[in-house]
Amino acid sequence: MIRLAIAAALLAASATPALAQDAPQSTDAKLDALDARITRLEDLNAIERLQKVYGYFVDKSQWTQLSELFTEDATLEIGGKGLFLGRAQVLNYMHSAFGPDGAKENVLANHMQFQPIADISTDGRHGWVRSRAFVMSNGGWGLPLYENAYEKGDDGIWRISRLSGPFTMYTSWEGWGKNALNNTWPDKFEPPPDLPPSTVYLTYPAYYIIPFHYPNPVTGHVFAPDTGQVGAYFRPPGTPEQAQSLQVGRLADGTQPIAEPPKD
Amino acid sequence: MIRLAIAAALLAASATPALAQDAPQSTDAKLDALDARITRLEDLNAIERLQKVYGYFVDKSQWTQLSELFTEDATLEIGGKGLFLGRAQVLNYMHSAFGPDGAKENVLANHMQFQPIADISTDGRHGWVRSRAFVMSNGGWGLPLYENAYEKGDDGIWRISRLSGPFTMYTSWEGWGKNALNNTWPDKFEPPPDLPPSTVYLTYPAYYIIPFHYPNPVTGHVFAPDTGQVGAYFRPPGTPEQAQSLQVGRLADGTQPIAEPPKD
Amino acid sequence: MIRLAIAAALLAASATPALAQDAPQSTDAKLDALDARITRLEDLNAIERLQKVYGYFVDKSQWTQLSELFTEDATLEIGGKGLFLGRAQVLNYMHSAFGPDGAKENVLANHMQFQPIADISTDGRHGWVRSRAFVMSNGGWGLPLYENAYEKGDDGIWRISRLSGPFTMYTSWEGWGKNALNNTWPDKFEPPPDLPPSTVYLTYPAYYIIPFHYPNPVTGHVFAPDTGQVGAYFRPPGTPEQAQSLQVGRLADGTQPIAEPPKD
Repeated sequence: MIRLAIAAALLAASATPALAQDAPQSTDAKLDALDARITRLEDLNAIERLQKVYGYFVDKSQWTQLSELFTEDATLEIGGKGLFLGRAQVLNYMHSAFGPDGAKENVLANHMQFQPIADISTDGRHGWVRSRAFVMSNGGWGLPLYENAYEKGDDGIWRISRLSGPFTMYTSWEGWGKNALNNTWPDKFEPPPDLPPSTVYLTYPAYYIIPFHYPNPVTGHVFAPDTGQVGAYFRPPGTPEQAQSLQVGRLADGTQPIAEPPKD
Repeated sequence: MIRLAIAAALLAASATPALAQDAPQSTDAKLDALDARITRLEDLNAIERLQKVYGYFVDKSQWTQLSELFTEDATLEIGGKGLFLGRAQVLNYMHSAFGPDGAKENVLANHMQFQPIADISTDGRHGWVRSRAFVMSNGGWGLPLYENAYEKGDDGIWRISRLSGPFTMYTSWEGWGKNALNNTWPDKFEPPPDLPPSTVYLTYPAYYIIPFHYPNPVTGHVFAPDTGQVGAYFRPPGTPEQAQSLQVGRLADGTQPIAEPPKD
Repeated sequence: MIRLAIAAALLAASATPALAQDAPQSTDAKLDALDARITRLEDLNAIERLQKVYGYFVDKSQWTQLSELFTEDATLEIGGKGLFLGRAQVLNYMHSAFGPDGAKENVLANHMQFQPIADISTDGRHGWVRSRAFVMSNGGWGLPLYENAYEKGDDGIWRISRLSGPFTMYTSWEGWGKNALNNTWPDKFEPPPDLPPSTVYLTYPAYYIIPFHYPNPVTGHVFAPDTGQVGAYFRPPGTPEQAQSLQVGRLADGTQPIAEPPKD
């Protein structure tokens, strides 16, 4: 429902300029209209930039600096681990799961950011980006797809208010034909999340269509993909079904070495 | 010839703002000049965005929504299959070659879009983008390079008027050192094209330089690469030469498994 | 010190618009302010575009056209080979190391450009971009990370004034779990550099954090990574320590086949 509301707001926002141009305007009104359009372009740049800055920090495990990019009440949801609430928890998650600040020998964690589709709300205070990361890490290849939200503070600075990055695929560096791995789940590693995952889903060879924050740019139609529960992780805890579901995508030796160096 | 005309028009377009700034201007003329520059920035954003939207639709086989991004009389030319004419044929091609709308189990078709070089015509109605896709699919790695065209309709909406994506390389997920495959050709799979390929070319380990829609941004010189016939597919149909040319790049078992899952 | 000065200048530049909006302004002053903001957006586009244009030229060995993108007194530093001084040396380096202009059979040299973080100086004459290339070449995978500088000439055209691209990782196409290679060093191949490397560093499985030209966009804090000597190449020439350091990352047969086709 939230996404439908965003899409409707974006439609209204994109319709406004055309209507405004029909009316005769004073010089001041024209200046204000140009100012608003420039501000929108600057804001689009700012949130795209923020996402790229985030990526360069992940590369080198700069967790404290990374956490400073978030709003005080931001949410973080990466992979299938569940929701972490607030900037302090963002930092706690990174430190607990990936170690202290700073790059390390034998670690590769490149999170290369691209293909951003950015939007700004009509009031200029909220932003959204659909984008990708292409991960080359110790564990192998990873393909997160982000649908993130951003907020412009009273200080005029944009911050990440929601980072949401389900994975499309996770494989060892040997290629997705040999090893296609499950993504993380809530009890995979420390720390535990504040809330369970907002969506349970599977990665390749299964699939999940992450909802789009924007309508089709030509038709204006909102695209509503799968709304039900998706994937093998949605099983009652402690049941044989859940145990079985966790086998999917494991390596031949039964391990699922996410964030571990490849074995040869 | 068309590309040279585009490049000359782009040179003229980029020279205009500098000249205009030399003359004293009324407030209204200044406002109009700023408006035009903002509109150009917005249009550049719009066509880059359209290309990214296209990529996210390919990922999940959203063929109907994808076809709606095209103009009524658009042309489509992917790989070496030839030209498909019109929006309806774009949809027919996708449905016939890749199946019905919707993501599927065991299918990976990520077409990740980046490195766009966008230009807008002086009249603001035509756009061009040179860009790339980095493909991770069932078949393996693919590197299309696009030189696409876009049109702004009377409704103010940009659409794709020409999608043209020759491949630079096509290999299995095992790497281009082991398998470098030919791209598609007209009779490789259904449906047949409306027109034969505009250019015949080969992929790695051969090469083809896709003509540039823009001049060198520093010298203004137009870059004119290979103009002749390029590659092994340019052979008289039905001849031994043509039959031999289709062997290039095949796997050891004689197959050329584009769009097939890797065998192990 | 230079980078700290740049970061301080960028902070001052980003603070200016907010202050300026507090004062009442004449129509002409408002027009000038809007003009300056549009010019900045255009300049950001221009230097990002220049970097993408560079990438497409590398792909196809268009060395003469590539060298024309540089200022007369530009510097070039790729990998660990040292500094090349001036546009003529940029061209000499490319021709000596990689052969004459033009794509070649059996050569793949794709340098795909993305994740640009661009900034423009307050006087509008200097620009900086942090960005990446994702290399798929004969030799395998490569991950350069650029911190480049650009200058706007009196003719209004942007050119590359410093190209600096240390590698993060270099492996064969078989994957970084099997082969992680050292990068180039000054005496690896012809021609010799005009000056030794500005920084000595190692690639994966070691690491090096390339200094950031911009402060943290939220806190404004300048990030100062490793300032000391980094990596195994920093050894006194002719010593056993230097000889040993060059073993790091070699293949099992003792070779380090950068820019050579993979052996199978």
